[in-house]
Amino acid sequence: MAVKYELIKECKQTRARVGRVHTPHGVIETPVFMPVGTQATVKTLTPEEVKDIGAQIILSNTYHLYLRPGHELIREAGGLHKFMNWDRPILTDSGGYQVFSLGPLRKITEEGVTFKSHLDGSSHFISPEQATQIQMALGSTIAMAFDECAPYPCTYEYAKASLERTTRWAKRCLEAHDKQDQALFGIIQGGVYRDLREQSAAEITALDFPGFAIGGLSVGEPKPSMYEVLEYTVPLMPKDKPRYLMGVGSPDCLIEGVSHGVDMFDCVLPTRIARNGTAMTSQGKVVIRNAAHARDFSPLDPECSCYTCRNYSRAYLRHLFKAEEILGLRLFTIHNLFFLLRLMERMRQAILEDRFLAFREEFYAKYGRDEK
Amino acid sequence: MAVKYELIKECKQTRARVGRVHTPHGVIETPVFMPVGTQATVKTLTPEEVKDIGAQIILSNTYHLYLRPGHELIREAGGLHKFMNWDRPILTDSGGYQVFSLGPLRKITEEGVTFKSHLDGSSHFISPEQATQIQMALGSTIAMAFDECAPYPCTYEYAKASLERTTRWAKRCLEAHDKQDQALFGIIQGGVYRDLREQSAAEITALDFPGFAIGGLSVGEPKPSMYEVLEYTVPLMPKDKPRYLMGVGSPDCLIEGVSHGVDMFDCVLPTRIARNGTAMTSQGKVVIRNAAHARDFSPLDPECSCYTCRNYSRAYLRHLFKAEEILGLRLFTIHNLFFLLRLMERMRQAILEDRFLAFREEFYAKYGRDEK
Repeated sequence: MAVKYELIKECKQTRARVGRVHTPHGVIETPVFMPVGTQATVKTLTPEEVKDIGAQIILSNTYHLYLRPGHELIREAGGLHKFMNWDRPILTDSGGYQVFSLGPLRKITEEGVTFKSHLDGSSHFISPEQATQIQMALGSTIAMAFDECAPYPCTYEYAKASLERTTRWAKRCLEAHDKQDQALFGIIQGGVYRDLREQSAAEITALDFPGFAIGGLSVGEPKPSMYEVLEYTVPLMPKDKPRYLMGVGSPDCLIEGVSHGVDMFDCVLPTRIARNGTAMTSQGKVVIRNAAHARDFSPLDPECSCYTCRNYSRAYLRHLFKAEEILGLRLFTIHNLFFLLRLMERMRQAILEDRFLAFREEFYAKYGRDEK
Repeated sequence: MAVKYELIKECKQTRARVGRVHTPHGVIETPVFMPVGTQATVKTLTPEEVKDIGAQIILSNTYHLYLRPGHELIREAGGLHKFMNWDRPILTDSGGYQVFSLGPLRKITEEGVTFKSHLDGSSHFISPEQATQIQMALGSTIAMAFDECAPYPCTYEYAKASLERTTRWAKRCLEAHDKQDQALFGIIQGGVYRDLREQSAAEITALDFPGFAIGGLSVGEPKPSMYEVLEYTVPLMPKDKPRYLMGVGSPDCLIEGVSHGVDMFDCVLPTRIARNGTAMTSQGKVVIRNAAHARDFSPLDPECSCYTCRNYSRAYLRHLFKAEEILGLRLFTIHNLFFLLRLMERMRQAILEDRFLAFREEFYAKYGRDEK
């Protein structure tokens, strides 16, 4: 098996747990946040910077790489790791989420999905087999089964048909997958319907996957609904395999996800809001364009030891954003990723030291909760 | 005197020379190319990267910093060095060039220049005294006198009136300047008219400046005209002070400038064309978007040892540009600056080893000349 989960410690008050995912590209300490490198680059950063910030694994998007530069080109380059100069683990999604997000540009059949490229309108067809082949060509450490991510809200009937198709597709992905040094994870769907999540969890975890994801969350539902789904779904997932909550990355969702026993997360949020000039800090969010920061010569976050906070003032950072200088995007991306990765590290430490609940309360007291 | 020039070695066949400029922020080995950091940042790079590439001094633009974030804010920040986290020398231009480039948005009188901001249309007035005050607030290592840069082409009468005003303004700048740890350089004007250049050189070098620049070149005139002006102007400049040719940065112009005895250069060219996806390489220019590079897994320049060439293929770099990823702009900026700074280093070495002419011929044989 290409990846193996090792449980290190469980929290006594919550389902939070610390573990290690062993992979051919190195060990990942969990719970872990995976920065997103959609197009074979974590936007604005070099791989060395992503490492220095503390990233153990990154995520890249199959849909985007399939369209540009093409998975065959990446295979010729020696795989995604070599192509982009990153030697730690990479997880690729299946492309399903992006394809389903295309709305009227795609059509789903049992065989697969026909869609039009958002780049040039050209027509494409991706089946579970092809999504698997593409990810094998990319050579990611962890590949994901091609699933159907139902929208929110969606009817019970739609969610049920969708999860059942996802199970059939999962089997086809497993069948098509034959890369020994790559893990293939299954994805549990079922929307916000408890019995459907139970059905999906039972069907998917019955299959021989080395790890499992919860898909179809963080797609517009209220956060309490997401936490409710986690509450009844995570316990249905095997304890001896990694659990991955897809598309989640705000500090409060990460903390709640960890509390519910999730091991892996990914989200574009920290890097996307960084490029907008919004920083996550120990005192909550900072919008750097605000006039209040014009003559503020203190760091973005006085409690942060990232490169940005060690070397630059809010006044300079604001200047960079006002002047539309790329260095501003870089410095904010570095800070936000550092902040989230440090949050994960502090959670791991707190779990190991039996003080996770106290840590959670302290964090919320300072950062606030961003419920909606 | 805030800066002092030390002559180390002269070429026997040309006017090329190697020297050192001693400044309060460190020693600059000349001939030197100064990367441009218009808005208090060398576009896309951190100061550490700019240093790693080998930059000894950077240039920043007074006009831009005056408008945004404002020189008083930078003074409050502790000066430009501290504001932008750069501890090596900084040269600031006077703002004259940018103001005169505004065309119909500015009006020149003997007192100074009234202009409208390109950012918000607000009205401003800058006199030689104010240009000097602004640069003292910025705290640059080398400030420039406020000159009038005549356009090309321009009539003899205009060029003469303009250079004579530049001389009067130079005296007012010297009068206004009272920052002991900052050098103020004078600028020779006179267009492409030999007797006017001679008049300007005589008037400006008679003033007590610790260094002199040749302005009003690289403004649209053919390269042979520029070289002709250098041929008769540089010998009129003192041997014991640094000579700076403003706005020049293509490889052939740098080599010809050095051949004519120039010590300092600046230009946005290498960084600007980098962001366009054009690289300067040992084999000439490479336009990375060209389809020929799509499956080229070799480095941008096989003879280059910069970070970009050591770690990435042309195929990956092309992908970054096609996908509009910021990392591409960074990697090309790094490469082009490295290429030019390495060229300067190789010229210094060749002069020291009495083989400058041979080096020049070898370089042109491979890179080609870009005459126009």
